[in-house]
Amino acid sequence: MAKPQQDRAVKTREAIILGAAEVFDEYGFRGASISKIMKRAGVSQGAMYFHFKSKEDLARAVMTAQPGTVVPRLGAEGLQRIVDMTFVWAWQIQRDVLLRAGVRLTNEQDGATVRDATPFLEWARILELSLAGAQEEGELVESVDIGQLAEFLVGACTGMQMYANAVSGRRDLPERTVAMWRILLPGITSERVVESIDLNVHRFA
Amino acid sequence: MAKPQQDRAVKTREAIILGAAEVFDEYGFRGASISKIMKRAGVSQGAMYFHFKSKEDLARAVMTAQPGTVVPRLGAEGLQRIVDMTFVWAWQIQRDVLLRAGVRLTNEQDGATVRDATPFLEWARILELSLAGAQEEGELVESVDIGQLAEFLVGACTGMQMYANAVSGRRDLPERTVAMWRILLPGITSERVVESIDLNVHRFA
Repeated sequence: MAKPQQDRAVKTREAIILGAAEVFDEYGFRGASISKIMKRAGVSQGAMYFHFKSKEDLARAVMTAQPGTVVPRLGAEGLQRIVDMTFVWAWQIQRDVLLRAGVRLTNEQDGATVRDATPFLEWARILELSLAGAQEEGELVESVDIGQLAEFLVGACTGMQMYANAVSGRRDLPERTVAMWRILLPGITSERVVESIDLNVHRFA
Repeated sequence: MAKPQQDRAVKTREAIILGAAEVFDEYGFRGASISKIMKRAGVSQGAMYFHFKSKEDLARAVMTAQPGTVVPRLGAEGLQRIVDMTFVWAWQIQRDVLLRAGVRLTNEQDGATVRDATPFLEWARILELSLAGAQEEGELVESVDIGQLAEFLVGACTGMQMYANAVSGRRDLPERTVAMWRILLPGITSERVVESIDLNVHRFA
């Protein structure tokens, strides 16, 4: 008869993570506190400390939740899957507080916050897996090193997002993502594949 | 006879900006204070307020000083100049506190710090000028939009630097910059030009 309690625990954990995301998105790591997050999530101190022992624990949970807000929305395979992943991400970062807070925490890392390369490495791993699929399908030119390309894409998207945030509050991020692929595709795949890739970013708007 | 005083004022201003860079690099925007910067630069309160009225003013001066730490070191023209710009930057960010602090302040922008898109826009303008030169020399394929490429490069380098910072404390940034060009060059220029570009990043070590 442990099932309902487990369900409740999962739901409480999710509520805490969502509350933490809202608080981190609004205040950053330094400005957030466990008590603010408890209030936002509507949970007791007992429930909080059952799931998370510290603000660092909460930040890590939000930071590593990023791929879960993007990957389940993907249908395509190969190179189109990678393009779609960046397109979904470009929209979701504007409307999904869990993704936005995860990105903020990942990017504001310095001596006084949580230092953790995991979100970068995890995104690179996910991209490299899809790139391996694209390579198997013969979609990539031979010169491409999929490990290097995966890491470059993670970095490029990270910085493109910061540029978009500085100049447009991220509103032009979808268009910038299309521009990125127009620059990258001719160098990593054949003309035939370039023409087959759907670059209509508004499919995911 | 105003010349020596002007010289002294320029030197004092430079000393203040360098002191500010050291303090911002160490403490970030929030952790820095005018009094810490005065102490580090070895200047009086009168000298400080003659040049800078606030911590925000100091941060903006450090943020906009970035190109000056890179551009004067360049000799080549066209596409090689742009490649060299990223190579010099990849080393300088590791050893020049003025560049490193400028990058940190630019990247940690949020509600509680200085919000200023100028450093992004200024780098993009500098890159677009050099790309226009490369285009005039026929080094770029026709499909390239130099404005979009310039902005993409600024974003990509920004994020690549953060990725490198998270995984290696920036030590592998020069190698990542080479990898970026191996990915980008085949899509933006001809095979002949790709072969003519010197990708030996250690020339600037």
